[in-house]
Amino acid sequence: MTEHSTAGAYVTQGSEFVRDQNYLTTRITVDGEEGWPVEAGRYRLVVSRACPWANRAIIVRRLLGLEDAISMGICGPTHDVRSWTFDLDPGGVDPVLGIPRIQDAYFKRDPQYPRGITVPAMVDVPTGQVVTNDYAQMTLDFSTQWTAFHREGAPDLYPEPLRDEIDQVARLVFVDVNNGVYRCGFAGSQEAYDRAYRRLFSRLDLLSDRLAGQRYLVGDTITEADIRLFTTLVRFDAVYHGHFKCNRAKLTEMPVLWAYARDLFQTPGFGDTIDFEHIKQHYYVVHEDLNPTQIVPAGPDLSGWLTPHGRGSLGGRPFGDGTPPAPPREPVDPAHTAEAMRG
Amino acid sequence: MTEHSTAGAYVTQGSEFVRDQNYLTTRITVDGEEGWPVEAGRYRLVVSRACPWANRAIIVRRLLGLEDAISMGICGPTHDVRSWTFDLDPGGVDPVLGIPRIQDAYFKRDPQYPRGITVPAMVDVPTGQVVTNDYAQMTLDFSTQWTAFHREGAPDLYPEPLRDEIDQVARLVFVDVNNGVYRCGFAGSQEAYDRAYRRLFSRLDLLSDRLAGQRYLVGDTITEADIRLFTTLVRFDAVYHGHFKCNRAKLTEMPVLWAYARDLFQTPGFGDTIDFEHIKQHYYVVHEDLNPTQIVPAGPDLSGWLTPHGRGSLGGRPFGDGTPPAPPREPVDPAHTAEAMRG
Repeated sequence: MTEHSTAGAYVTQGSEFVRDQNYLTTRITVDGEEGWPVEAGRYRLVVSRACPWANRAIIVRRLLGLEDAISMGICGPTHDVRSWTFDLDPGGVDPVLGIPRIQDAYFKRDPQYPRGITVPAMVDVPTGQVVTNDYAQMTLDFSTQWTAFHREGAPDLYPEPLRDEIDQVARLVFVDVNNGVYRCGFAGSQEAYDRAYRRLFSRLDLLSDRLAGQRYLVGDTITEADIRLFTTLVRFDAVYHGHFKCNRAKLTEMPVLWAYARDLFQTPGFGDTIDFEHIKQHYYVVHEDLNPTQIVPAGPDLSGWLTPHGRGSLGGRPFGDGTPPAPPREPVDPAHTAEAMRG
Repeated sequence: MTEHSTAGAYVTQGSEFVRDQNYLTTRITVDGEEGWPVEAGRYRLVVSRACPWANRAIIVRRLLGLEDAISMGICGPTHDVRSWTFDLDPGGVDPVLGIPRIQDAYFKRDPQYPRGITVPAMVDVPTGQVVTNDYAQMTLDFSTQWTAFHREGAPDLYPEPLRDEIDQVARLVFVDVNNGVYRCGFAGSQEAYDRAYRRLFSRLDLLSDRLAGQRYLVGDTITEADIRLFTTLVRFDAVYHGHFKCNRAKLTEMPVLWAYARDLFQTPGFGDTIDFEHIKQHYYVVHEDLNPTQIVPAGPDLSGWLTPHGRGSLGGRPFGDGTPPAPPREPVDPAHTAEAMRG
């Protein structure tokens, strides 16, 4: 996602960072009551591997086996004032949508579209219009509306009896962690930064306490709550620690969270969606007002992600009554994996 | 030291960082052949606790017990285009020199002084002129020219039979480490950064190998070589890791160097000269082109500096036939010590 439509200007002097949370909230549902029914092959999920909000959708699509039902377009890691582009594709054009920039699909929906041009976005292929970029609802709908297209053995990532607890944990994780790292990085004053930093690390301490004795955040299987925490933790040392000044400690120095994150990383559907090079390129190149030189650090050594995590002794059933997903259809560039990124 | 006299502009786009190494090289010697004889009470050492080059002089003065012979003026951590100021002193004026800025002493020496206004500087109190800011020679002269004023039990930091080896180690440490971190941080291109990063961490790996089996860099006692490496290591996690993108690993993740640095830190005369708050303020506030928001990170947690280092088992005699120095005359603000800086 982009936070603003003005490239390079992410910090407002003297202000706290406030995320623009106005999205296209149209939902794709089984009954199609908002005009967009669930239908295999009709929609294209547009993502960037750099973006934590899009990463959620990539993981959930993969865990549920929705690859055949929902195709995926992948934007490159960096962008300018006109937001994400399909610069990784031959000719710089998405092969299905036939457009060079995701903004084209937003303007198809509304020629005056006034808000952030963000990923993830679900695009209606026949009309070329963005249906929704409401990432929080999007993955829940993958779980609840697209059930007819889930793979054999798909896990239940949003189990009915645990939804209240998942929603509650996810809300705290969103405010203090997912968005908390941005509030540190884009703080426009020392006070705003200090406040965000304290909230972030207090929340991480509490999450660490919670995870010390249980393998996953809610229940004994992987749920939506884990996916939401994972996408921030996996970026922590690569970008948030230095670039966003979230530096009380690296993730590698927080033993419980580091083991928890490694456990998920090594679970099929998680680490195999992570392109560390895209992540680093995105943050260090796009946020020019934080990093005017646009130099991308060579570190950190990320190979530790593959070390044993020891969380199996806590029990838990990663996929519940289901099974792990097959290897990814859209594999990450081997040069951009944890193994390759030794700094 | 300041690297340039234009505040906020430390990076030259497209260029490697090249340190201006033109200093006032006049020496203060026993025979006074350059016009400035060694004389107790005549000179004032002007420093900033933030600056690694000044830190050397603070440590050597303290280890040798030169406090009575050479007084010390301490500039605040931040500065503007006109360089370091005495803003910590009552009225913002150095009580001995009677000037608000160290530049005044440079201009006393040469009204057209064209080069960097840097610390450490040795100032002749009677005339108010800077004699030398050649930090590399300065500490060697403390060891070799000021012997008449060394304290009882002062260590030999530059032992005659080891000078060639000390000089050789110090040269490599200067190029790749002391100045190497600046070449990472002030690199004007990705290529220049990548090159500096590789040299820095290759050198740290070699130093780690060397120090795995011996307590100090040269011989079995603390020498000038250790002091020179220490002043960079002690700033590594606080500023170089994030701000200068020296981020293959934190010092805390390099076991041999981390234990070596802690050993020195906990030795009287080293850690008690370190003001972590000044260090962080300086780098993050002064280098506006690297950190336009001038927000100072709250981390890292620095209390690990006080943990056991286990280096005693390697033997070594820290002060040789000498003794540790007494507690510091000019103690660091208790709120700025490792113990207090938990992030």
